[in-house]
Amino acid sequence: MEDTTAHNERVFHGTPVSGGVARGVVRVIGGRFEEPRFRVIAKDKVDEELAAFDAALQTTRRELEGLIRRLDSEADKQSREIIEMHLMVLDDGLINDQAKKLIREERMCAEFAYYRVAKDCMDSFARIPDAYLRERALDIKDVAQRVLQHLTGDCRDDGAGDEPAICIAHDLTPSETAQLDRQKVLGFAVELGSRTSHTAIVARSLNLPAVVRLHDLLEELHNGDKVLLDGDDGLLILNPSEATLALYRARELEAEKKEAKLLAGSAAPAITKDGRRITVGANAEFVEELPHIRECGAEGVGLFRTEFLYLEDPEAPEDRLTDAYIQVVKAASPNLVVFRTLDIGGDKLDPAYKGEDEQNPFLGWRGIRVSLARPKMFREQLRAMLRASLHGPVGIMYPMVCSVREVVEANAHLAECRRELEEEGLVFTHPVQRGAMIEIPSAATIADLLAPHVDFFSIGTNDLVQYTLAVDRVNERVGDLYQPTHPAVLRLIRNVVEAAHQKGVWVGICGEMAGDVAATPLLVGLGLDELSASSGQVARVKHAIRQLDAGECARLVQESLLESEAETIHERALEFALHHYPEILEE
Amino acid sequence: MEDTTAHNERVFHGTPVSGGVARGVVRVIGGRFEEPRFRVIAKDKVDEELAAFDAALQTTRRELEGLIRRLDSEADKQSREIIEMHLMVLDDGLINDQAKKLIREERMCAEFAYYRVAKDCMDSFARIPDAYLRERALDIKDVAQRVLQHLTGDCRDDGAGDEPAICIAHDLTPSETAQLDRQKVLGFAVELGSRTSHTAIVARSLNLPAVVRLHDLLEELHNGDKVLLDGDDGLLILNPSEATLALYRARELEAEKKEAKLLAGSAAPAITKDGRRITVGANAEFVEELPHIRECGAEGVGLFRTEFLYLEDPEAPEDRLTDAYIQVVKAASPNLVVFRTLDIGGDKLDPAYKGEDEQNPFLGWRGIRVSLARPKMFREQLRAMLRASLHGPVGIMYPMVCSVREVVEANAHLAECRRELEEEGLVFTHPVQRGAMIEIPSAATIADLLAPHVDFFSIGTNDLVQYTLAVDRVNERVGDLYQPTHPAVLRLIRNVVEAAHQKGVWVGICGEMAGDVAATPLLVGLGLDELSASSGQVARVKHAIRQLDAGECARLVQESLLESEAETIHERALEFALHHYPEILEE
Repeated sequence: MEDTTAHNERVFHGTPVSGGVARGVVRVIGGRFEEPRFRVIAKDKVDEELAAFDAALQTTRRELEGLIRRLDSEADKQSREIIEMHLMVLDDGLINDQAKKLIREERMCAEFAYYRVAKDCMDSFARIPDAYLRERALDIKDVAQRVLQHLTGDCRDDGAGDEPAICIAHDLTPSETAQLDRQKVLGFAVELGSRTSHTAIVARSLNLPAVVRLHDLLEELHNGDKVLLDGDDGLLILNPSEATLALYRARELEAEKKEAKLLAGSAAPAITKDGRRITVGANAEFVEELPHIRECGAEGVGLFRTEFLYLEDPEAPEDRLTDAYIQVVKAASPNLVVFRTLDIGGDKLDPAYKGEDEQNPFLGWRGIRVSLARPKMFREQLRAMLRASLHGPVGIMYPMVCSVREVVEANAHLAECRRELEEEGLVFTHPVQRGAMIEIPSAATIADLLAPHVDFFSIGTNDLVQYTLAVDRVNERVGDLYQPTHPAVLRLIRNVVEAAHQKGVWVGICGEMAGDVAATPLLVGLGLDELSASSGQVARVKHAIRQLDAGECARLVQESLLESEAETIHERALEFALHHYPEILEE
Repeated sequence: MEDTTAHNERVFHGTPVSGGVARGVVRVIGGRFEEPRFRVIAKDKVDEELAAFDAALQTTRRELEGLIRRLDSEADKQSREIIEMHLMVLDDGLINDQAKKLIREERMCAEFAYYRVAKDCMDSFARIPDAYLRERALDIKDVAQRVLQHLTGDCRDDGAGDEPAICIAHDLTPSETAQLDRQKVLGFAVELGSRTSHTAIVARSLNLPAVVRLHDLLEELHNGDKVLLDGDDGLLILNPSEATLALYRARELEAEKKEAKLLAGSAAPAITKDGRRITVGANAEFVEELPHIRECGAEGVGLFRTEFLYLEDPEAPEDRLTDAYIQVVKAASPNLVVFRTLDIGGDKLDPAYKGEDEQNPFLGWRGIRVSLARPKMFREQLRAMLRASLHGPVGIMYPMVCSVREVVEANAHLAECRRELEEEGLVFTHPVQRGAMIEIPSAATIADLLAPHVDFFSIGTNDLVQYTLAVDRVNERVGDLYQPTHPAVLRLIRNVVEAAHQKGVWVGICGEMAGDVAATPLLVGLGLDELSASSGQVARVKHAIRQLDAGECARLVQESLLESEAETIHERALEFALHHYPEILEE
């Protein structure tokens, strides 16, 4: 796990889960949940103790509510839900009443009383065989820790230390992550975890380096220790020597030079050596991202996710939505912006529906299924998108399409909204393209039947792979089976492209696969017209396309489709990519 | 909801969810959870009261343990898990200690103390936003009801009344169903529910009539009332008149005659008018079903589910498995028995793995994924199947296949097991066929790549439809989207059949679609070689095949594949079926 390379430099080896390098001091995260000292309260101090207990509950409540306010992006949704759950635990009458009873009747000090009750409650949960319920014990623990800290004045490190630091933990819980001030986090190093664990997902979404499975970290490291975290190679280096630092500085310099070179050329279009132009757009969901999208060389927005704007303000009237969408269209104009209509679970839209029956939410009430059942909300969104189209070209795309009927119905709503707006005096100056997400196997299989009803398809590889292989990619037990280069996935994509091109419909791809330059030869060879990647990947993808010959790529695909193993196809594509653009793959 | 047709006959209209007709008396199911009368316990009786409380807990424990022992089939798995959860609630230290404290310190009677604590606890659960947790409140209620009944001597109707009856309830909970003596249930009529609700699923699996959404039932009906329950038309008739009874008797007689006629001819093979023979097998999972399989005219077992035998005794040594499998093979010989290797979630096999990460268990660690990770157990099962093949022809089929690698690995295990057994002196006399379940879209898409590695495919339409359309069919919100006649599903089936036949591999189908005679023309037209249905459907399916012309069916499929809507295809197939065999469709 560890070796000693310099006088006091020590290297810990773990599993890299989010790339990048960070240097800084250590901040140890994660409170303790230990039995407080027992104190007997004097008879005449009982009321005071009860008041102190109530005050601690109040302070904790304010703290949690503050955290919720801080969690504002879609990426934070999960964390927000967890904190909301914590508020429920905090308000648990049973726990609080029992604690008060112990204070009153047994004259226990508040912290001991509360600890005992919370501990009992946790233990009951921890004995339950159901995994989900058992995890709720952690929620109780988390809340109890907060209350106890306020009672004992043992102030919790809220991650708001003075200088940015590398966060070290046994296993970062979602709520611990939620309370971190992200401006002050340089990276994550934890003892447990995996590629799909919470820490890894958060780190990647924040674009911070992270290494997991670093054993015995907490025994060896302390607050303030100087470390270097290498999220590419999975190393944590304590007291890095001058030589080590110099090595990393040189690496970094080279990487920066490369990046600068890539960005310098990124504005030019992406044309293959044999002359096929492929549009490279960016995926986005925040208005704030828009300036960066132009800088990175993206030709428009291939996927604008509208969930964030919705969740930020579910009651947003049409005018407010329109304003936001106009900002997006203006920023991208004259390039196309493809808006995806709301793609969230039904529970977010229908407070009466809490997903009661959703044992498998990925196979549940989501996307266009919900929109068609909530026409008022759906049409508000469509109207806002149509109104935004006065400022530049717009595409409107329906998520989770599984049958023709859904597209026909959605188009009918769109046409009616357009007619309404025209009657209200609007004169549409730009064409509005209609599109269907291809992310369910049935949609890929009947692309020829869907094509007459749309102007474009956008293949969402993340979900398409998931459904095609029956693999939930966040499930660690089957994560290895999540293979975008599975021959079935490539065949379905090919089927979509062929069916679409026959009907004059263009096809884009907006899953993570679009940003993976190891997959670019396959995507070019499959005949995709557009790739939409995260903005950080756009320059790289454009560079890759310029080094490729579309004809050669088509041959690569032909050969790959005869292979039966995803791994073989992946290796073949990677080799091909390494041959054509090693400079952006050698990492 | 209700109309009055005779002097005192009353008809309640609901939604039919499980067919058939039953006549009998009403038994109202479902206890009450009401505040018991408050009694103060005399000081010197407190210990007695505590002992009575402990005794009630003990009695409840024995009762629950007894229930678990009664739940022995795979269909009961869910019920068993619920009762296990109830045992945890019963043992909850927090609840019991609090109740005892109230008895001891406040001298409350046990029933009142327990009621108050349980109610508090339930209320806390009921306030939690998470739907799953909220439901746990019902578990507490269920356990509390039992304990209270034992404390108050108000003996619960355990469904063990003297005569068989029609069970009436507001909404039958899983635990209420679990405790019913099934020999004494004639049917179910409930006020809530839906086609996919618990009551409906249980009723269908028990082959009992059931009607849901019968409003105000409990107000109008009482124990012992005479009723007729019509699960075909969704009617509950209170005090049925002589005329009504005569009508139903006539219907029944006709149905019996039809059934007898069907069964009389069922032994003959199923050959289409133009001479194509299609094998019709039965699905089975209990050794006890085997005699019935031969009676119904099934040509072998197209799907033998091995989960029940496993769950009954997870530690079953190879010899015991072999004995059971031999019974199945002997019963079907000289026809083929297709054994499906274990198809259950990983949590059933690996006690350390409770499905922690399985937010979407249908996309999780199941079937062959688990078997390949547990080679010892997998090979024990393969060896038992191979040994059973000495007594008749056997097929071994892998569930949840999503890639070629899995089949290759599974085959390697099978070949090694065979070699081992040959070295141990066994001489195989019957060929053992290897098969892959086609139930994941990727498997259907790469059927050509899988075919060289197997002797047959068996299409599991239930799962295939689910994954292809991204619809969990037990989720009521999206249940309507679960459409076996979706053009994508038919195309995938066609692709499988074509790819298989090119390689000389035969193709069966073993999902519910195989037993639906409205779908038979499509399945015959798609070129399936075998249909495996539940034994109750076999005679019907064979009869349907005999009325069809395979060439005409192929044309029906050609036309259907140009349709974009599942409903249209379904109607077209139904019309076709009605034209050819109205006698088994008019219901």
